[in-house]
Amino acid sequence: MSTSKRATDHPPHRVLLGPGPSDVDPRVLRALAAPTLGHLDPEYLSIMDETRELMRQVFQTRNEMTIAVSGTGSAGMEACICNLVEPGDEVLIGVNGVFGGRMKDVAERYGAVVHTVEAEWGKAIDPQQVADAFAKHPHIRAVGIVHAETSTGEHQPVEEIAHLVRQHDALLIVDAVTSLGGLPVQIDQWGIDACYSGTQKCLSCPPGLAPVTFSSRALERIDARKTKVTSWYLDVTMLRNYWGEQRVYHHTAPINMTYALREALRMVVEEGIEQRIARHRRHHLMLRAGLEALGLEYIPEHPLTTLNAVRVPEGVDDAVVRGRLLNEFGIEIGAGLGPFKGQAWRIGLMGSSSTPRNVLLVLGALEFLLRDIGYTGGSGSAIEAAREVELSAAG
Amino acid sequence: MSTSKRATDHPPHRVLLGPGPSDVDPRVLRALAAPTLGHLDPEYLSIMDETRELMRQVFQTRNEMTIAVSGTGSAGMEACICNLVEPGDEVLIGVNGVFGGRMKDVAERYGAVVHTVEAEWGKAIDPQQVADAFAKHPHIRAVGIVHAETSTGEHQPVEEIAHLVRQHDALLIVDAVTSLGGLPVQIDQWGIDACYSGTQKCLSCPPGLAPVTFSSRALERIDARKTKVTSWYLDVTMLRNYWGEQRVYHHTAPINMTYALREALRMVVEEGIEQRIARHRRHHLMLRAGLEALGLEYIPEHPLTTLNAVRVPEGVDDAVVRGRLLNEFGIEIGAGLGPFKGQAWRIGLMGSSSTPRNVLLVLGALEFLLRDIGYTGGSGSAIEAAREVELSAAG
Repeated sequence: MSTSKRATDHPPHRVLLGPGPSDVDPRVLRALAAPTLGHLDPEYLSIMDETRELMRQVFQTRNEMTIAVSGTGSAGMEACICNLVEPGDEVLIGVNGVFGGRMKDVAERYGAVVHTVEAEWGKAIDPQQVADAFAKHPHIRAVGIVHAETSTGEHQPVEEIAHLVRQHDALLIVDAVTSLGGLPVQIDQWGIDACYSGTQKCLSCPPGLAPVTFSSRALERIDARKTKVTSWYLDVTMLRNYWGEQRVYHHTAPINMTYALREALRMVVEEGIEQRIARHRRHHLMLRAGLEALGLEYIPEHPLTTLNAVRVPEGVDDAVVRGRLLNEFGIEIGAGLGPFKGQAWRIGLMGSSSTPRNVLLVLGALEFLLRDIGYTGGSGSAIEAAREVELSAAG
Repeated sequence: MSTSKRATDHPPHRVLLGPGPSDVDPRVLRALAAPTLGHLDPEYLSIMDETRELMRQVFQTRNEMTIAVSGTGSAGMEACICNLVEPGDEVLIGVNGVFGGRMKDVAERYGAVVHTVEAEWGKAIDPQQVADAFAKHPHIRAVGIVHAETSTGEHQPVEEIAHLVRQHDALLIVDAVTSLGGLPVQIDQWGIDACYSGTQKCLSCPPGLAPVTFSSRALERIDARKTKVTSWYLDVTMLRNYWGEQRVYHHTAPINMTYALREALRMVVEEGIEQRIARHRRHHLMLRAGLEALGLEYIPEHPLTTLNAVRVPEGVDDAVVRGRLLNEFGIEIGAGLGPFKGQAWRIGLMGSSSTPRNVLLVLGALEFLLRDIGYTGGSGSAIEAAREVELSAAG
């Protein structure tokens, strides 16, 4: 390896304000580094049990089948789809960004006949579209929808769609990768049948596990399958017995990652789900006021409070600003994906990253750099706009 | 949660002498807990590059396509099979234990027509069986073989089989989960086309990643596929671009686990592959002499130096001894799997666990406990037998 490309021995401390990973609390990093236990050690099994129980609290569910899949969020997506879909099944997917498109791809790979309801990137799927799709395709067996579209920052209401899906005796699969732990995700109350998330977003744990939950209706569907699940690694019929009372050996769980997830979930529960959601909202409003004062325009119609997607202003070089943020201030924000490549910034305020300090930091740094490169847009000070929001929230 | 089932806040420090995970060096645990970087941060990308280069050294290969799959060893198995096998392909799998059986299951799930060559558990597959299978089924396109069968402790020679497979223009897939970093695994010299391992065995990193490598012949096969790979998460055509120069976003890699794997691989390379293999051999011989002095009989015909599978003596309660080892001395050894349930102990000396101290510790503890429960077998002191082997090795 040449000297110039030599990897750093000690990863630097960034402030992670991109679309994930978010900042990991030192408490979680310490948990991660605890001594490795055997995966069948009674002490580890009780840690798995506690982690399941904490996941149930965060998912707001009583679902027995709530586990952490041994992979990242996309493995969680694949686990939900490959278990609930059999070759030839008709499936409806809402596509208004990268992750809806990914669900479609995964469902097709597993042999589903995929219908889609689509919306412009940055707009939500209208429940009426789902109703129309059921009218046209009455044999739809499962519907997949992205609650928080990480590629556009759009917040998709799920409750009404869930109601429709249940009326048609189909199953609802929800992508909550960028919402779980930062926005309300009420599995039981809304009637969601399968939901997956990642650890590195609003839960602020390093990436590597995917919390998933399956309703009893979903498990009945799995029990009634005519074909084996193609993926051995993600087969819920076996994962159930591994995480269940019987502890039937399946694979070796990522032990240290489980420690970290447990600690991160404890922090969510200690803070309180409601309080945590309110914190995300409050800091989003501060940031939003500041970004808008700088003349930055939100892309989504209904912005997520966890991830802020704004347009890169005309004449501003996306890569230069992100590069300087990283190199001069150690701040990471995200670039645009797909059609938004070079045209969007995605600023995450997720989990431990959602602090007033980070709001001021990223606003200050953006104002500094944008003015530095000659950008003259906006109506005033980003910091002052954030202060006014905070004052009115306090008042 | 009831008090009795409450999970421990602080995982205790075990001595891990089971079939994996093995002991993780504090240096690796410290690396694991370094600050989380973004998965597209240039600093992280250079860490990925270094990790790839180190994996190539340990696999003894120049294969460009050498990566860590974001899952455990079984995800590595599935990645090799699902990419190299298309529905209807004829595949030959060697089955002489749990993991050969698992390969067969995975290949069938992905639509392969599976033929098997089988051997008794604890015996190796004879290359002649493979030659006979090719004579009977000339259209076999891939062969799967387990180098180190974790369920029986049997060491399977691979070189001759690799030669046969190449003569028939098929691809060879090798399971090196319990051998990589402890036994010779020479991808290029032996002519292996795809190989997978886990991090938590002889590499002594926590579980959660699966090092895999694909030869250029294997990549040509993937490029010539008529069908998409069913698994999106494990699709090598996309993983290649994610780990390659282009860095095309696929999923969020388990960042902190990559830190740990890099550090663990550095320790392998610093020690030297040859020296490390010799260390595993030396401590295996010490342990073996001690276990045999206690009258414990090895199950495999060709024992692995990394994992020692012995029969539980007549009249001795397997669970009592393992339970007391864990509870009184904090030592984990493994139980038997499948037909060996209750009848085997699997004692791993892998990676950081392969030390003379651990040899003495587990021999002393076993002698102590076996005598304590009234076992009278064996011909003498386990420690003295180990000392004699060490003396003759030194002389």
